[in-house]
Amino acid sequence: MSKAQALSRNAFKRWFPIQTRWSDNDVYGHVNNVAYYSWFDTAINQLLIEAGVLNMAQPRVLGLVVHTACDYFASVAYPQCIDLGVRVARIGNSSVQYELGVFVKSQDSSAALGQFVHVYVDAHTRKPCALPENLRQFLHTLQGPGSEN
Amino acid sequence: MSKAQALSRNAFKRWFPIQTRWSDNDVYGHVNNVAYYSWFDTAINQLLIEAGVLNMAQPRVLGLVVHTACDYFASVAYPQCIDLGVRVARIGNSSVQYELGVFVKSQDSSAALGQFVHVYVDAHTRKPCALPENLRQFLHTLQGPGSEN
Amino acid sequence: MSKAQALSRNAFKRWFPIQTRWSDNDVYGHVNNVAYYSWFDTAINQLLIEAGVLNMAQPRVLGLVVHTACDYFASVAYPQCIDLGVRVARIGNSSVQYELGVFVKSQDSSAALGQFVHVYVDAHTRKPCALPENLRQFLHTLQGPGSEN
Amino acid sequence: MSKAQALSRNAFKRWFPIQTRWSDNDVYGHVNNVAYYSWFDTAINQLLIEAGVLNMAQPRVLGLVVHTACDYFASVAYPQCIDLGVRVARIGNSSVQYELGVFVKSQDSSAALGQFVHVYVDAHTRKPCALPENLRQFLHTLQGPGSEN
Repeated sequence: MSKAQALSRNAFKRWFPIQTRWSDNDVYGHVNNVAYYSWFDTAINQLLIEAGVLNMAQPRVLGLVVHTACDYFASVAYPQCIDLGVRVARIGNSSVQYELGVFVKSQDSSAALGQFVHVYVDAHTRKPCALPENLRQFLHTLQGPGSEN
Repeated sequence: MSKAQALSRNAFKRWFPIQTRWSDNDVYGHVNNVAYYSWFDTAINQLLIEAGVLNMAQPRVLGLVVHTACDYFASVAYPQCIDLGVRVARIGNSSVQYELGVFVKSQDSSAALGQFVHVYVDAHTRKPCALPENLRQFLHTLQGPGSEN
Repeated sequence: MSKAQALSRNAFKRWFPIQTRWSDNDVYGHVNNVAYYSWFDTAINQLLIEAGVLNMAQPRVLGLVVHTACDYFASVAYPQCIDLGVRVARIGNSSVQYELGVFVKSQDSSAALGQFVHVYVDAHTRKPCALPENLRQFLHTLQGPGSEN
Repeated sequence: MSKAQALSRNAFKRWFPIQTRWSDNDVYGHVNNVAYYSWFDTAINQLLIEAGVLNMAQPRVLGLVVHTACDYFASVAYPQCIDLGVRVARIGNSSVQYELGVFVKSQDSSAALGQFVHVYVDAHTRKPCALPENLRQFLHTLQGPGSEN
């Protein structure tokens, strides 16, 4: 039902290490499908914070999550370490679509592939607004081959 | 970037109440995008357990989650109660696709819409296998209008 | 090493139903020790919100969690429903200690027993302050036999 | 109500880095009281796995968590990195008590201090049993000053 394909490491522009947790595994002994999304949130927000483009104290714009998705190709398990690849697949006027590749150490094919879409809105009116210029510049640095502007 | 549309309550066949938790809200004061997936897991597995078609002790087949997705249309927040609508959108030979509607009390338009795909594999060979007949019968009872067999 | 004893249902003043989640179980098939604390947070905050004594929008005082603890006497597991008993064990000048009993349906001996201590501070100075009077009144209604004022 | 005192780094024998997650923060913008316990579980189990004394596949003995506790002295927040100090405070015949210090980078006073008690039981009879000798040897290496045998 899903036509998603695993990607290799060279599709990604930035790497973010993820430490798995005991609670990531469910009763089947592998990371539960939900936990991957917690990793995506952690990586994307931290990259934005470190780049200085996420102002949580007095935000003028807010990034609302409007869509997330994940395709799971192979299981991973705590206490494995994960290499999370991040790329920006598409930058719109007020939105950005990230893709996230979950890689086990020494493997070149993604064990999972996530999608994450932010739409930016004005913090007061809650209406969609253009991406701030410093954010747009940063997002360009995360674009992989084949991304759309 | 996402063309998903909110659905109304009459698209769903079964209802599962969800109690929100303090931890579902994130720093923005609304349920975080990850928490919805925890609700989906909780509802689908409990429906399968209660129908007697999920044998966790000595499974002959395993349902592997191969795809999940969620579109978010409006925010929800702890301590709201959620009505989670469940329907089966498609039954394949070895797979089943669920759709899950997140509804706030007294609202008829889904605040979020989830997708969840299980592929069943033989517990020993880990190869895809036909859905067990009792599971297939149960899944038919969850099919909504416009579902595919 | 722990001298805690299970309590019976009549030790508690208020009841709060908890819906277990798939993610509460860990690889051993029982609710993980961490999940209980998520229930405690959910119950205490919701009781305070419903009593109108927790103002999250413009708080004048903040309840800081300074101590939590849990003794586990018997395992529980998703998809069981939990009856969570709540009582106030001690009310100080600026603090309150809750006790929380985790009960499986039809059992009178607590499967677990939690402790949860809030210290209230002024939202601006962050210095401990007296409990607001409406909060203190509400907490009195949660005191069980043998509680200290 | 709690007489616990923060500890300094030299009280601990082993260090385990913790990567905070977006979901660790709650609506107040700091790590929620529950998240710390998720860190404790992650660290203790991983130390036991890496030492080869936790056999999850075919366990002869099981470590049941019978008590956990945490005192919170100062707030921490995602995306801070945490140094988690681990020591064994007491080794009994069938039980072990860990203490866990939560330290922010460059701070010598613990922001929080956790307790975690395992009682080991025979995997079949579920009756308490002596600690396996290889586990006992490993636990001795984690004993800090002032620990009890």
